[in-house]
Amino acid sequence: MQTIKYSKNKNWQEVLQRPVFDSSSLEKKVKKILEAVKSEGDKAVEKFTKDFDGVKLKNFQVSKKEFSEAAELLSNELKNSIIVAKNNIEKFHAAQLHAPEIIETMPGVKCWRKNVAIEKVGLYIPGGSAPLFSTLLMLGIPAAIAGCKKIIVCSPPDKRGKLHPAILFTAKLLGLRDVYKIGGVQAIGAMAYGTKTISSVYKIFGPGNQFITCAKQLIQKDGIAIDMPAGPSEVAVYADETSNASFVAADLLSQAEHGADSQVVLLTSSADLSRSIEIEIEKQLEKLPRKETAKKALEKSKIVLVKNEDQAIEVLNEYAPEHLILSCNNAELLADRVINAGSVFLGNYSPESVGDYASGTNHTLPTNGFAKSYSGVSVDSFVKKITFQQLSRQGITEIGKTVEAMAEAEGLKAHAEAVRVRLSNIVGKHSTLNIQ
Amino acid sequence: MQTIKYSKNKNWQEVLQRPVFDSSSLEKKVKKILEAVKSEGDKAVEKFTKDFDGVKLKNFQVSKKEFSEAAELLSNELKNSIIVAKNNIEKFHAAQLHAPEIIETMPGVKCWRKNVAIEKVGLYIPGGSAPLFSTLLMLGIPAAIAGCKKIIVCSPPDKRGKLHPAILFTAKLLGLRDVYKIGGVQAIGAMAYGTKTISSVYKIFGPGNQFITCAKQLIQKDGIAIDMPAGPSEVAVYADETSNASFVAADLLSQAEHGADSQVVLLTSSADLSRSIEIEIEKQLEKLPRKETAKKALEKSKIVLVKNEDQAIEVLNEYAPEHLILSCNNAELLADRVINAGSVFLGNYSPESVGDYASGTNHTLPTNGFAKSYSGVSVDSFVKKITFQQLSRQGITEIGKTVEAMAEAEGLKAHAEAVRVRLSNIVGKHSTLNIQ
Repeated sequence: MQTIKYSKNKNWQEVLQRPVFDSSSLEKKVKKILEAVKSEGDKAVEKFTKDFDGVKLKNFQVSKKEFSEAAELLSNELKNSIIVAKNNIEKFHAAQLHAPEIIETMPGVKCWRKNVAIEKVGLYIPGGSAPLFSTLLMLGIPAAIAGCKKIIVCSPPDKRGKLHPAILFTAKLLGLRDVYKIGGVQAIGAMAYGTKTISSVYKIFGPGNQFITCAKQLIQKDGIAIDMPAGPSEVAVYADETSNASFVAADLLSQAEHGADSQVVLLTSSADLSRSIEIEIEKQLEKLPRKETAKKALEKSKIVLVKNEDQAIEVLNEYAPEHLILSCNNAELLADRVINAGSVFLGNYSPESVGDYASGTNHTLPTNGFAKSYSGVSVDSFVKKITFQQLSRQGITEIGKTVEAMAEAEGLKAHAEAVRVRLSNIVGKHSTLNIQ
Repeated sequence: MQTIKYSKNKNWQEVLQRPVFDSSSLEKKVKKILEAVKSEGDKAVEKFTKDFDGVKLKNFQVSKKEFSEAAELLSNELKNSIIVAKNNIEKFHAAQLHAPEIIETMPGVKCWRKNVAIEKVGLYIPGGSAPLFSTLLMLGIPAAIAGCKKIIVCSPPDKRGKLHPAILFTAKLLGLRDVYKIGGVQAIGAMAYGTKTISSVYKIFGPGNQFITCAKQLIQKDGIAIDMPAGPSEVAVYADETSNASFVAADLLSQAEHGADSQVVLLTSSADLSRSIEIEIEKQLEKLPRKETAKKALEKSKIVLVKNEDQAIEVLNEYAPEHLILSCNNAELLADRVINAGSVFLGNYSPESVGDYASGTNHTLPTNGFAKSYSGVSVDSFVKKITFQQLSRQGITEIGKTVEAMAEAEGLKAHAEAVRVRLSNIVGKHSTLNIQ
């Protein structure tokens, strides 16, 4: 790890600059795949599945038989763990829906806002080096709580044309039946534009590599919504003298093992602690199966020695990490000062991995500094908040003159007339001015 | 208006197809302006202001003097109306913030979610044919309620280098001081990339013409968030035999006067009613100053004669209108069946114009069918929802095995180790297993 000692450069954006990846080089390739799926449908999906996943599939949908086989292939320990995680995630996300509250802004002017599920959504679950059934929990649970009617799941098949049993077990547990063995850009294209097999959806969720990210950007231009822009996963840890070097080292490593492009940042005011943590990292690294990946990520990672806690918070808010671990004494007080972060972990017993899997919070979070303007996925991501208003005769009478004056001032006479025609009708009908 | 009589084509998307505008022809031009602002800052803004707004400005920021002059230029009636609208909008939007609620998903595992304002936001208020001070209310009020620290307002100057006094009065009323006389693509560029005068922001809000829309799409690629994709304004009205033809006609006209590209749709099962409404439209149209604009919009507008209420709801949900007026007897029952719409107006005394100005709901709404996946602007649009979790020793002990099993199954050993290192520390320290 590279150590930045008590930097005089206060441009923290510059000090902690993330690598910039230019997707324009991929764009041509990705566009071609999307266009082929759009025009040729399943035929194109078949072709790309053969080319990229190395397997010839005629039927992409996971069968009932495959679902039931899956449960038998998993240990009871794993199945129970997935159930525990599901319960926690459900508990946390269920509290995110609020019943409509009618606000009477003026007598007879009632306004409210209602959560209505997005009808059709698509969830992309990457395959590759790890079967991310945890991501299926994180997307499928809020989608179900929101009440989305059509929930499509796509994930790349392995060489035998199968999905990992943990993904299938999780899908079944969540009641998801529209699960397809399709991966990569062709999956994003199929969900965006629809094929004979796959229904098109209004919003697509899920992580992925640079091809997936680029595909999601492109289909967004065609009016399909996406969860958020994406970048490599990140963690920032703030540690003080009360933190445990081996805990912090383990947290940094758990982010580093994600991929060579993972961003790992440690902030502390103590040079001694930072040295102890580095020693611990060396020690723990040796035991990891993904040692080589983690090493590559660590090479580009940074230790920032800060003057004090205040400066730590300043740097952290400027960096806007996806995950932020406050491994320190007064974590609650510091957490109150966090302005930009995806998810925050307080104290010595809250490693990032509990949030990744089972604490209940969502692990689909804004990376790449997007925490400055984006939230992580929640039930909100799967609903629209439709507003309603209902005025009584009294209501329009109370508010009428206000609307007329404003519409006239904006030069929108017909807007004023829509009120006037009602007011004169009311006065005409109710000469006694019984306006209720 | 074109009448579609009891269509046999049940592909309502096709029947009610919106005009497709391809912004790629503008893209080159818009990109050039954005790039110039990015590299040359204020100098470029000055140049484009001269070229496009026809005025040479050295200082873009609205001065204290201009703010105080503005109030004197407006009638008391208008000022009071703006104040009434502000109060209603504040009342409705203030109810949108929920205090964090701590959910203990397992003993010792506490999770919560907090609304934190986006620090820096930019509000674009179009000039052109109307001074849209109402849009400033709709964006400025939720931004203030959210607690955004830096709120930049940009609006194009008139030929004398001034902003409309109603915009300045509204800005002052909302406590907004960073108001700049900059319009068009150069305003979007200045807020996205920053200049010496204008601070860069993390998210840009506001309507605009096709150039503004294109500029917002382009800066989004650079990681600046935007409120939502945009298209021409729309209304759909469902009317039954209890509705008043002159009210409905006035509502359709108030949408039509917005612009020649406005989308206006009437649904009813009664051919008689539709004829009465058309006659009313002809009558009311004559009195409108924006008659020519409204006429153009009406030429492309549609009356859809539906079989019954059920079919009306089916068509409406498929069309996903920005504004939906349920001008009918059982509006409450129908409103419950609305899945896709931006804002809904119930009954005969709730014209769209009350929502445009003063009922309290927001008028920045998803157009172009985006109501299928997007919500209108609300306080939510100005905050991020950061999640937090704090585990006690008991918490990590309760959840530890679950996380370990899932991490191992995903092949992420370091994730499991981050839990393990804590569990063995707890067991080591507390041989009596006093894990609290």
